[in-house]
Amino acid sequence: MSKAYAASKPGSKLELIDVDLPELGPLDVKIKVAFCGVCHSDLSMINNEWGNAQYPLVAGHEVIGEIVQVGANVSTDKLGDIVGLGWHSSYCQQCSTCDSGDHNLCAKAQPTIAGRHGGFAEYVQANVKSVVALPKGIDMKSAGPMFCGGITVFNPLVQYDIKPTDKVAVIGIGGLGHLGLQFLDAWGCEVTAFTSSENKADEAKHLGAHHVVNSRDKNEIEAVANTYDFIISTVNVTLDWNLYLSTLKPKGRLHFVGATLEPLNVNVFALLRGQKQISASPVGSPATIAQMLDFAVLHNVRPLVEMYDMSQINEAMEHLEKGDARYRIVLQADF
Amino acid sequence: MSKAYAASKPGSKLELIDVDLPELGPLDVKIKVAFCGVCHSDLSMINNEWGNAQYPLVAGHEVIGEIVQVGANVSTDKLGDIVGLGWHSSYCQQCSTCDSGDHNLCAKAQPTIAGRHGGFAEYVQANVKSVVALPKGIDMKSAGPMFCGGITVFNPLVQYDIKPTDKVAVIGIGGLGHLGLQFLDAWGCEVTAFTSSENKADEAKHLGAHHVVNSRDKNEIEAVANTYDFIISTVNVTLDWNLYLSTLKPKGRLHFVGATLEPLNVNVFALLRGQKQISASPVGSPATIAQMLDFAVLHNVRPLVEMYDMSQINEAMEHLEKGDARYRIVLQADF
Repeated sequence: MSKAYAASKPGSKLELIDVDLPELGPLDVKIKVAFCGVCHSDLSMINNEWGNAQYPLVAGHEVIGEIVQVGANVSTDKLGDIVGLGWHSSYCQQCSTCDSGDHNLCAKAQPTIAGRHGGFAEYVQANVKSVVALPKGIDMKSAGPMFCGGITVFNPLVQYDIKPTDKVAVIGIGGLGHLGLQFLDAWGCEVTAFTSSENKADEAKHLGAHHVVNSRDKNEIEAVANTYDFIISTVNVTLDWNLYLSTLKPKGRLHFVGATLEPLNVNVFALLRGQKQISASPVGSPATIAQMLDFAVLHNVRPLVEMYDMSQINEAMEHLEKGDARYRIVLQADF
Repeated sequence: MSKAYAASKPGSKLELIDVDLPELGPLDVKIKVAFCGVCHSDLSMINNEWGNAQYPLVAGHEVIGEIVQVGANVSTDKLGDIVGLGWHSSYCQQCSTCDSGDHNLCAKAQPTIAGRHGGFAEYVQANVKSVVALPKGIDMKSAGPMFCGGITVFNPLVQYDIKPTDKVAVIGIGGLGHLGLQFLDAWGCEVTAFTSSENKADEAKHLGAHHVVNSRDKNEIEAVANTYDFIISTVNVTLDWNLYLSTLKPKGRLHFVGATLEPLNVNVFALLRGQKQISASPVGSPATIAQMLDFAVLHNVRPLVEMYDMSQINEAMEHLEKGDARYRIVLQADF
């Protein structure tokens, strides 16, 4: 049994209810939630935008908390560990993708908030493989957003071997983008922020951007043609992607971690002439999450958060929905 | 002065004319053409499909011949060398792209048949950097198509570090694809041919394919979901690219060396779930051309060619235009 804030149907307000938790599996752990970040995909699930929501739905997948119970095959040494839990709550650990260390790409990976209850709750359960212990020195209150927003922008730097000598850009300075700027600056890169919000320009520079370009101003974008080795797009709106491809150097990559349902409409010749590439990726593996946390502590990369008590969750969700969050909301459990 | 087969206007038949060659630059060489392959882009240029044709237009960019004259700053040791010349006749050699060895991506690289006369001629001139000597043991008659069709499918294997343990596929078994199958088979890969021509299935297997899939049969394609590390598309028609993305393994790449003017219409989620990627590339650098030629000799990779005398050039172009070439046409100079 756990108290939890649940949506009873698509788009409904969240109500405090009691939910039954399944019997703890032999490789599972039970976490007492201390903090939980709020991600836009929590809203998407509550609203059943992807068609896979089950109600009552308990969202929340940027969990920080303490392990208070372990399954039969988990070492009791883990009791009391302060851990994080992100988008995935288990992996099949049977497939070649898991065997290769790419657990986040496992076709049978279980999302924390689809078909099970997430972290807007007193307790959450997950396979031990999917939780990562917090390193010493990290700020526990703001660490939650690292487990979804953070790893989503950090993972591509590892996957694509981004170099400190690369010139890079981040499109969209929000929950993901504000972490992308910090990580890329710490990585040693020359960083450009593309944003449509003029009032974010100064903040973007404070977060690590060396340059700011208006993401909707064609002239400004044309002025940076042939500039970047790597661009990461965090937005979920359609931009002129062929124009953005022109800002890449030969062999450059335009990488998507945000997405609309509209197709990309990319011109092959925009890729071909400069041997350019397009890619996209979801979150990251447990090993990469652990790397990220160490790197974040070393370089003082941390989410800028707005704190709410979990009992204010509906107010927090409204704030997010309006696009007003600067830059990530974290709920503190107050059951 | 050189005899040459030229188009006088878009789409016209080719006529034998005399053309003036510019004075040989200090780093140029003059090649007496022995053979010249015919590529679909020769037709595109003759028909001014890309808007950059200048008439009279002498196409031909898969040249094999002998160096008969060298510029003031080229060693006379090169006189008598048997060389090949492909899509590019010079590179700027001043930019960071050239400095990095990626001459084929140089923004100022000069196409052999745009703004200068190509190889459907008695003589052709080019910067010495853009010609590559034929290695011992190569078949001179069929080597021309290596310099455009061959390098276009070989270069991605080098660029993307394709491994012998990879499972790969080639879409379209024509001038480029029939070389792609041979290269990938020699590379050690398990190779699938996607073709819409049932009568090419046996030939595809003879060329190195271990499996053949009908490129227009949705059921056959769905049956190979999650199979390939790398797919190279050589076709210039629009297929269901999201369906092809589903045949890639996680982290797989769909690479285009053929292209239509229609946009790709790729769904971001089709890329995101498995961290997949899309890319495209043009020909290859002189260093990679030299690697390819050595590899081709070692593994007996060679274009299957249909020979015509150059005086039969209009007949050859019609044969190509009908899609009947198996698999590449080569003209033998008979001036």
